[in-house]
Amino acid sequence: MRTSKYLLYTNKNNNINNELISYKLMLKSGMIRKINSGIYVWLPIGLKILKNIKKIIYKEINKINFFEINIPIIQSANLWKKSKRFQKYGLELIKFYNRKKKLFILSPTNEEIINKIINNEIISYKQLPIKFYQIKTKFRDEIRPNYGVIRSIEFIMKDAYSFHNSNKCLKKTYNIIYKTYIKIFKKLNLFFYIIKANSGTIGGNISHEFYSLFKNFKNKKFFINNFNNIKNIKVIKLIINNNKYNIEKLRIIKFINFININKIFNIFNKNIVKIKFIKSNNNKIIALLFNKNKILNAFKIYKLKNIYKPLNYICKKKINNIFKKSLYSIKKFFLNIIIIADYNIIKIKNFIIKFKKNKKILIGLNWNINLISPYIANLNNFTKNIINFKIKNNLLISKNIEIGHIFQIGTKYSKIINSNNFKKKINMGSYGIGITRLVAAIIEQNYDKKGIIWPDNIAPFKISILPINFNNFKLVKKKSIYIYNKFKKKNIDILLDDRNKHIGKLFNDIDLIGIPHLIIINNINCKNGFIEYKNRKNKNKKIIKIEYIINFLLNKINFFKKE
Amino acid sequence: MRTSKYLLYTNKNNNINNELISYKLMLKSGMIRKINSGIYVWLPIGLKILKNIKKIIYKEINKINFFEINIPIIQSANLWKKSKRFQKYGLELIKFYNRKKKLFILSPTNEEIINKIINNEIISYKQLPIKFYQIKTKFRDEIRPNYGVIRSIEFIMKDAYSFHNSNKCLKKTYNIIYKTYIKIFKKLNLFFYIIKANSGTIGGNISHEFYSLFKNFKNKKFFINNFNNIKNIKVIKLIINNNKYNIEKLRIIKFINFININKIFNIFNKNIVKIKFIKSNNNKIIALLFNKNKILNAFKIYKLKNIYKPLNYICKKKINNIFKKSLYSIKKFFLNIIIIADYNIIKIKNFIIKFKKNKKILIGLNWNINLISPYIANLNNFTKNIINFKIKNNLLISKNIEIGHIFQIGTKYSKIINSNNFKKKINMGSYGIGITRLVAAIIEQNYDKKGIIWPDNIAPFKISILPINFNNFKLVKKKSIYIYNKFKKKNIDILLDDRNKHIGKLFNDIDLIGIPHLIIINNINCKNGFIEYKNRKNKNKKIIKIEYIINFLLNKINFFKKE
Repeated sequence: MRTSKYLLYTNKNNNINNELISYKLMLKSGMIRKINSGIYVWLPIGLKILKNIKKIIYKEINKINFFEINIPIIQSANLWKKSKRFQKYGLELIKFYNRKKKLFILSPTNEEIINKIINNEIISYKQLPIKFYQIKTKFRDEIRPNYGVIRSIEFIMKDAYSFHNSNKCLKKTYNIIYKTYIKIFKKLNLFFYIIKANSGTIGGNISHEFYSLFKNFKNKKFFINNFNNIKNIKVIKLIINNNKYNIEKLRIIKFINFININKIFNIFNKNIVKIKFIKSNNNKIIALLFNKNKILNAFKIYKLKNIYKPLNYICKKKINNIFKKSLYSIKKFFLNIIIIADYNIIKIKNFIIKFKKNKKILIGLNWNINLISPYIANLNNFTKNIINFKIKNNLLISKNIEIGHIFQIGTKYSKIINSNNFKKKINMGSYGIGITRLVAAIIEQNYDKKGIIWPDNIAPFKISILPINFNNFKLVKKKSIYIYNKFKKKNIDILLDDRNKHIGKLFNDIDLIGIPHLIIINNINCKNGFIEYKNRKNKNKKIIKIEYIINFLLNKINFFKKE
Repeated sequence: MRTSKYLLYTNKNNNINNELISYKLMLKSGMIRKINSGIYVWLPIGLKILKNIKKIIYKEINKINFFEINIPIIQSANLWKKSKRFQKYGLELIKFYNRKKKLFILSPTNEEIINKIINNEIISYKQLPIKFYQIKTKFRDEIRPNYGVIRSIEFIMKDAYSFHNSNKCLKKTYNIIYKTYIKIFKKLNLFFYIIKANSGTIGGNISHEFYSLFKNFKNKKFFINNFNNIKNIKVIKLIINNNKYNIEKLRIIKFINFININKIFNIFNKNIVKIKFIKSNNNKIIALLFNKNKILNAFKIYKLKNIYKPLNYICKKKINNIFKKSLYSIKKFFLNIIIIADYNIIKIKNFIIKFKKNKKILIGLNWNINLISPYIANLNNFTKNIINFKIKNNLLISKNIEIGHIFQIGTKYSKIINSNNFKKKINMGSYGIGITRLVAAIIEQNYDKKGIIWPDNIAPFKISILPINFNNFKLVKKKSIYIYNKFKKKNIDILLDDRNKHIGKLFNDIDLIGIPHLIIINNINCKNGFIEYKNRKNKNKKIIKIEYIINFLLNKINFFKKE
């Protein structure tokens, strides 16, 4: 494509404050524009990226024999009332009355309707398993639409559903989807982690959430969790942080002299963690864990969601009683309470908790082993925003992006909606990927000062030709068009920047948009039969003979094509 | 794909009466299912067809440098009030209040918002022309959703918009789109015609509508027009009906003896057309034209939309005056009034109109030459449904499908919505294709008693292998899988029907679904190294050596791939 025909809507003058880097870059590079709160138009370059991501997802989901269908957006409110989700979704659900005064909703997800379809289509159990998916626009009337496409009202999701005649069969498909999701997110070049929800109130249901990390987390190897829903106890499984280490056995030691603990157990001071207990507003115990050297900031705790107010540290009978009991009951206790950990202690292994009142210390505590993985928050008095913390409305804003969610639903919906005369109920799985927000997630991990750095397989154009004085030097023009046509013939998405503008402006735009491979053509090099190649990511430059550039880049591009 | 994995939702027991053949076949072949009135889910095989159609459209629209974007479905009602379309659309527009009590609509089309986007993005006139398109779900709360996906509440449309700094530039793009639409509809194997709207109340605006014909019309060479909007005077241009015939010169003959007219002018009696005049409710003259031998049914006329009531035939001064004047003024008169013609007279060429009061007859009248092409309706007392007519609520139901509509809008929206400081206003074009209804349109022209007959480029699978006793004869199984894998390697969409069912059932399903190329594998042929090939459309059978079938079909398939 030639830039003269393909308008770039780059924009240097955007004055968005306090917004995410990905949102800023999406606006600046002309990928999207805001139309209303939480509602965006995707401009050509943004849509190309979106489609490249879709292509990767289509390919992987088709491979595992899920079949694409198209589910209507408009759905009867009655169906949603049946499943009680009409009430549960509340104001998030967009509703309207049609001309005949019937109430409808705009689908945020499709469990009800897909069960209705399955109910009508399945004649016998032999036809199971059935696996459907779609990629389509969905709607959620967010109370606070924010962060660009990450929390928007209209968004694109891949939703998939599977139906089985046994729980075993469901689990098998669930595991395949689980692996496929990992494959997809890896292909999208993402650093991510997976959270497993504990068996909750609906017995036996299993669910995993996939979260993409922000750039800073890649190096610092820890993360902050979203603190929106304290009701769900979550087990965090860090995919990227699976360093092996010696796990000590959990022990209780009677307290002698806490100051000398280092000497006795030969462990670092930083491994000592303090604990305090508070209550949630539904009267559950919450344990606050923090570094021995830090001081808890009561104001920050007070501002956490779902905390019982007035704030009151409990250190009373109930807890004392537990710690008088066996190691088994302490273990059980720690695997059942809600834990909020200060972000400083997330990396600590084999840590030690002291209970002054009980004159005991607990040694060898480890996340996911004898402690449920915690909600992570900034709880201490140290205020520096180490990892770009943002406190908005005095709430901790999550610095991760939920990109996928898979769920072994079981028979819940089939019990309600399926009315046909099967003896057994159908087991269902539900699997989502947030596609529009994936774009933001990828940007959050791939940018520098100049703009976005797209991975090759997602880039809107793989290559950009930047001719210096395209309209003045005949040779530059000739060679630019020559190279451009060569790549076009190979079906490579290439952009020839033939705008009559200063090379600085061209570079700024192309770097901002994030095209991974640049070919710079100037008159002097050209005369000698050379061009300059520049890699957007590692900034490496190379002078290459014109006749070699095609193969040089085709090799690179074929490489990622094969993946 | 193997049928054992890819469920076919064919269904012989559907009891839909009085519905279109395309709708019946879409249900029977398992392409769609109805969820609510006017709302459908697209099952895997239906969606494959839809995607094949999309692919053809994408390719052609991309070729002419329209760039794809993604416009939000949810749009502010204020924007639509600004353009007055909020009122004009009325109940057809789906509206809802969000949680903050703001009113929004679900987009049926996007002229307002695209102008808003253009207004924000264009910095100078130099950036024009700009050409955008998208393929996306749209919404219209139809008063009478009907005919399956032809008149549904949720549907997929390609909408495209172009913006120009001059009317000349707009016309140029308009002509390119016009040609591209013809190309697309031809690629989709459709018989269609184009209607040109006359310059209407908004001076200078031009619009063309593309209509697909029903199968019967293909042979009978005439059609009925939709009679929804009498305000627009339309010129019908029949693309498929361009048989040459001798056009007589238009003449006025003073009336002598009407009974003897045949003898005098040597024309058939049926060429004589009677005329009556009534008024529309916006006080325009409407001419009713009908066969000399038929009697007008006043009740049917009364029930036509937009007719002034009480019904009153006018035959007064105004018209008399015209017919006293020159041939020129009569010509002009006939090219400017609204004509409603009884369907019986559509095929008549060089017809004759008699005006008893004026003692004149007019000879050599021809549609599109000296008569504006008419609205066509059933006006006479003869009730037999010659061409599968359906009279519903006493209105003639159109037997064509509007598949495309293109429009030179001019500056209408840019005047209202564009607030920036351009000296000149921007000229706009708007171009739509109804994609979901295209599926029905194609079926209406491609079916037989057994089911659908898909054109090669739209078929959900190009080839189906039908093995006889797949599970009993090892050789049949082996050869079926061998051939199947050969085509898979060539990336050909092929279905191996490995269901353990009677061959009759397999044939019924595959014929119903409309797969164009069948390979029948039985044990006896197999032993001799042969298979049987059958063409779904022309029913031709051929015994072919196994080693030749691959190339035999690849040649056929490559042929349509190249197109």
